Amino acid sequence: MAKKKTTKKKTTTKIPVKKAGSRTRSRIVDKKRDAVTKKKIEDLATSVVQRSLGQKEPTFEIPIRSVSNMKYNKKKRILEMGSNTQTRSLFNLGQSRKFMQSLLLAKGCRDLIDAEKTLSLRGMYYMALHTIPGTKERTFNDQGESDSILEDLEVSLDGLREELHVFAKKRGTMVGNITVVDNGDEINCRRMGTGGYAIPSICEPNIMQFKECGADFILHVEKDTVWSRFNEDRFWEKHNCILTEGSGQPPRGVRRMLHRMHKELKLPVYCLLDCDPWGHYIYSVIKQGSINLAFESERMAIPDAMFLGIRSKDYERLDLSDDVKIELNDRDITRAKQIAAYPWFKGKREWQREIKLMLNNGFKMEVESLITKDISYVTEEYVPARLKEGDFLD
Amino acid sequence: MAKKKTTKKKTTTKIPVKKAGSRTRSRIVDKKRDAVTKKKIEDLATSVVQRSLGQKEPTFEIPIRSVSNMKYNKKKRILEMGSNTQTRSLFNLGQSRKFMQSLLLAKGCRDLIDAEKTLSLRGMYYMALHTIPGTKERTFNDQGESDSILEDLEVSLDGLREELHVFAKKRGTMVGNITVVDNGDEINCRRMGTGGYAIPSICEPNIMQFKECGADFILHVEKDTVWSRFNEDRFWEKHNCILTEGSGQPPRGVRRMLHRMHKELKLPVYCLLDCDPWGHYIYSVIKQGSINLAFESERMAIPDAMFLGIRSKDYERLDLSDDVKIELNDRDITRAKQIAAYPWFKGKREWQREIKLMLNNGFKMEVESLITKDISYVTEEYVPARLKEGDFLD
Repeated sequence: MAKKKTTKKKTTTKIPVKKAGSRTRSRIVDKKRDAVTKKKIEDLATSVVQRSLGQKEPTFEIPIRSVSNMKYNKKKRILEMGSNTQTRSLFNLGQSRKFMQSLLLAKGCRDLIDAEKTLSLRGMYYMALHTIPGTKERTFNDQGESDSILEDLEVSLDGLREELHVFAKKRGTMVGNITVVDNGDEINCRRMGTGGYAIPSICEPNIMQFKECGADFILHVEKDTVWSRFNEDRFWEKHNCILTEGSGQPPRGVRRMLHRMHKELKLPVYCLLDCDPWGHYIYSVIKQGSINLAFESERMAIPDAMFLGIRSKDYERLDLSDDVKIELNDRDITRAKQIAAYPWFKGKREWQREIKLMLNNGFKMEVESLITKDISYVTEEYVPARLKEGDFLD
Repeated sequence: MAKKKTTKKKTTTKIPVKKAGSRTRSRIVDKKRDAVTKKKIEDLATSVVQRSLGQKEPTFEIPIRSVSNMKYNKKKRILEMGSNTQTRSLFNLGQSRKFMQSLLLAKGCRDLIDAEKTLSLRGMYYMALHTIPGTKERTFNDQGESDSILEDLEVSLDGLREELHVFAKKRGTMVGNITVVDNGDEINCRRMGTGGYAIPSICEPNIMQFKECGADFILHVEKDTVWSRFNEDRFWEKHNCILTEGSGQPPRGVRRMLHRMHKELKLPVYCLLDCDPWGHYIYSVIKQGSINLAFESERMAIPDAMFLGIRSKDYERLDLSDDVKIELNDRDITRAKQIAAYPWFKGKREWQREIKLMLNNGFKMEVESLITKDISYVTEEYVPARLKEGDFLD
């Protein structure tokens, strides 16, 4: 994956203490990929210019990012975006603002690529923010506006946000039987203590390479506190795996990391999530992709990911006490029914049964609730038993 | 700091790939400290038993954790808890529930110490949760109840939450010119890529030791996105420092880490936070301690921490555009006045001026807003200039 020779050389040498300024420039640059992205941005700009010079109305096409233009690809088992587009034109009063914003942010991304730097979504907002001379009109009213336009750009340019050099909030940690190279630094995830390696926002191959991996699978858990329990009990060592968490709905960095480890290292992914609509939705996003960002599924979704638990039947199966019950509220019930009706859950008898049992139970359960059995019940009994039985939801 | 010989030995050997189950037991145990904590818990229990057997009402004293019982120690420059206590007694209808909860959670902590394990706040809630036989009464209605009782226990037993083997959510990352040993793993923070080392929830000396450090200071920034900018620009290497972030209000792990690095490694701490009441409050907590958890200040607060920016005067000083302005709302104005009235800000002319100017300006500013000058303005111009001038708020 890494094509720069310097990367491999440097990682084996020992870095002396107090040696500053010695590192080569950051490896966020992938000249080939960046050139492609830049070309796409410039093509967009050129087409607008040519239409203008040709005395035609400046317009460009943007694929529609809505549920109506999203479809489930049964063969690939991922969410995909349809082919519907909308025209964004300068002389349409309802579109001119977005037209201008798109070009502003496209220019921003081009500048980032030229500067060989990356920026947060918030940073992009500030970068493209200004008051239009002679007016009190700001280019953006809030970050929400620029985030949405950046997503438009992703789909129009068919480039991941990361390829536009823009990153989202960083969350999530990792430990386990793997060594990665992150921006030239070799990171041995077997020696990351209690804290762990913080999964970066951008896990693209130019920045992140896998050096060696002896793990048999990946266990992804919902919360950092559960992750700490598994790490403290050295689960990843005993069961020879990689342990990740995404602090709730995993951010793009974590999803991309899971996707790449699954695909490139052929590791199965097992998810340990809460038995509630939120947990089911997290699983859905990891597995099939996100509804709002269906265009990224190809590079993010893991159709073979498995749901290990918590299961509705665990209350009876494990003889849990009533204390683990958290009553479903109206919102939960509505969400559960929505999720059961997702095309990718609809055809699955086991998932239908799972959600139905949860609704019949009338309560949800968290992973942490297994502590009512024993502090390490989840790491020493629950997960090992599920792995042994192979009893997962697909 | 580290007293276990094995720690030092192991960290220099290279770990072979695919070697599982070879590690010694986790080092979360500190036999001496744990024995002290356990003794305190048992003393609490014994006193209750003795009063009961002596036919006296079972009671114990809990220091009051409220603003009224908190005072600012001018000499130490930290917030401290006063000496007021309240009696918690079993036969008082308003107190019996809390009495029972306190003993339940104290037992939970004792069990954790015996099991040589740690647990999250959520985990503790589940551990002590049960329905009282013959009733429908649960020991806790929600986690809020158990969190509050755990804080009571911390102050009653005069032990940090970490000493009770309980941890809070993990947030925050670190890179820079330092090598730490975390649970026996040597972590070279100069080689942590773009992701960084995730700062653990518990950074007590038995788990975390500092192995070598060549840094001159610590730069603590508010947000992970800003941290990424500094890391990408390799600020910590160019300026020979340690770079930390706490994802907003830093959690206890980050505060304890900063405190220990400041105290044990004699590193000055500079804070780069937003110019708004929230940024000022974060600084206040890092420096003087938290109002609600004043009892932990001694081991958390850093009275010598400095506020590097953003400053109210930056709008004029740096000739920023109006786009950086975010209007103060009513809540901001109220909070700003409250903060200005804090005893530790009250006597400081510079802070009074700072907050007054912000109120006069009528707007707040975020660190990210410096991007309107240039992508790397904050790392290449702003912070270096402040460090050179030594222009900080104390």
